[in-house]
Amino acid sequence: MGEINIRTLAKELGLSISTISKALQDSHEISADTKQKVMALARLHNYTPNPYASSLRRKKSNTIAVVIPEVADSYFSQAINGIETVAMEKGYHVIIYLTHESFERETSIIRDLGNGRVDGVLMSVSSETDNFSHLKQLYNSNIPLVFFDRVCEEIAVPGIITNDFESGYRATQHLIESGCKKISYLSISKELSIISKRLEGYKQAIADSNGLLLKQEVVHCPPTTAQTRQEIEKLMAGDERPDGIIASVERLAPPVYEVCQQLGIKMPDELKMVCFSNLPTVSILNPSLTTITQPAFDMGKKAAEILFSMFKKNKPAPYKMLTIIPSDLIVRHSTERQ
Amino acid sequence: MGEINIRTLAKELGLSISTISKALQDSHEISADTKQKVMALARLHNYTPNPYASSLRRKKSNTIAVVIPEVADSYFSQAINGIETVAMEKGYHVIIYLTHESFERETSIIRDLGNGRVDGVLMSVSSETDNFSHLKQLYNSNIPLVFFDRVCEEIAVPGIITNDFESGYRATQHLIESGCKKISYLSISKELSIISKRLEGYKQAIADSNGLLLKQEVVHCPPTTAQTRQEIEKLMAGDERPDGIIASVERLAPPVYEVCQQLGIKMPDELKMVCFSNLPTVSILNPSLTTITQPAFDMGKKAAEILFSMFKKNKPAPYKMLTIIPSDLIVRHSTERQ
Repeated sequence: MGEINIRTLAKELGLSISTISKALQDSHEISADTKQKVMALARLHNYTPNPYASSLRRKKSNTIAVVIPEVADSYFSQAINGIETVAMEKGYHVIIYLTHESFERETSIIRDLGNGRVDGVLMSVSSETDNFSHLKQLYNSNIPLVFFDRVCEEIAVPGIITNDFESGYRATQHLIESGCKKISYLSISKELSIISKRLEGYKQAIADSNGLLLKQEVVHCPPTTAQTRQEIEKLMAGDERPDGIIASVERLAPPVYEVCQQLGIKMPDELKMVCFSNLPTVSILNPSLTTITQPAFDMGKKAAEILFSMFKKNKPAPYKMLTIIPSDLIVRHSTERQ
Repeated sequence: MGEINIRTLAKELGLSISTISKALQDSHEISADTKQKVMALARLHNYTPNPYASSLRRKKSNTIAVVIPEVADSYFSQAINGIETVAMEKGYHVIIYLTHESFERETSIIRDLGNGRVDGVLMSVSSETDNFSHLKQLYNSNIPLVFFDRVCEEIAVPGIITNDFESGYRATQHLIESGCKKISYLSISKELSIISKRLEGYKQAIADSNGLLLKQEVVHCPPTTAQTRQEIEKLMAGDERPDGIIASVERLAPPVYEVCQQLGIKMPDELKMVCFSNLPTVSILNPSLTTITQPAFDMGKKAAEILFSMFKKNKPAPYKMLTIIPSDLIVRHSTERQ
């Protein structure tokens, strides 16, 4: 058998070239049965179309991009698993781009994607991002975009979020019920929607506590581990140190444990903590860590489902449609009342 | 000003079209000064070439792919950081593909990459992979390929590894010195070079212990967390349970802690453990975990440097050139002698 192309596949299956082409593009015009036959024969002959030539022709890459701040975070690794479950079913490849919380990197990546390298983009914005022109440009280039977790409210596309305000409220309320009088909130960004909503929940819970709380404080933690550690040392070495901490993202918990070990501060006796975290090791920490656990897998899955539905309809989804999947408070030893 | 293209950039800078084109491709024929001028003007005008059209023309995507089993592993997230440090300097984008330890996914990804979607590939093979025809095909398509951590010895390309045999040996020797008599080795694959080398080190250390050890055992842990947990429960609930464990990858440690909690087995009194792990939480576990810590960042950085050197020379690097960067044994409470 000579060179394999769409023409030879069509001949062998007794179908039209256009049917083969549409089947390979997973078009809704073609039945599932026919698609399966075409895919099987293509696989048998080890046939893959040249991605650049065919992208120019049909403007389709069968690839979606996931743009996220980092992978060293269990939330994002679990969300990716959810996204890939859906993409695999559709025969799509998933490629991951990391912004490392840098606005400059995010802009460069989004600009690259705006040129049609992928069919759609799933994204969680960086903590540095406070200017959205790159996202508006992507939106204007008609590449389907869905936000998950960290949304940008100025862009009219769907977003999957969790109940950050309520979670911040519940975490704070739980610390108050466990006997805390001075609760500090560890933040990583003034810009991020998720961080500010969790913070609003914290403030509301304190306001609702009728003056039970003697002190509240928001500590801003810089991006590097070493700088964050310094901020926490400063917080915990002071005279007015907190007896409760809400850590707004996963990476902020380990330095709190380390600083307490170093300064001889006993957890949970002298310091209680709740952390927004999906880390698989929270239950084997010393003490085990009370968490707000996010539905990361489900959020990724839902975001991908919405993105693929936008491909099918060939039109953008409803303006700013937000889907909310709630998080759980899981109580462990780090907030045990003495 | 009208539409921006290479021609208008050339006119504005008083340079030839070919110089602009080469500068945008980071060609070594163009001086750093000129490149900087061209890039700055391109950025000013928000000019980005269409990636598909220009890829067909110049066969260059300014993108490298990193193909790895998973991101929920600190080794890989740190290695990615090392890779991105180098890529950013060169003005390249890094895209990440996940195989989830599946041979089928790996084959599908590599086939996709073989069509010229990226300029080069950095890769750590999946634990399921025991047939290498997809890698041979990629090799034959002349896309530069460098392995890191998990190499495939049948493909004649450079690889960056660590000293897995010595690390397995040192981990085992350390457990023997801490008083262990029955040491089990937790494996995840019979195929993976890294796992079998660590295992050889373990066996050699036992052979060198002159019969001090009463029992040795290799336990194969399946890919899912639930199945792995079951295997470890079976191991620890038996009459002949080990007093020492070597966990060959990071994800195997948490289930050991959990099973010990559940069965009331005290660590390190009744069970000591060393784990190959780069997890940032090892020092705050209960007890803190003794680890073989791999030079993940440096391995990723070195792999990327070699890949970029292959681009420049426009020819494959020396046959099977292996670079070895050693790991560290870091002793913590999980192996404390009673």
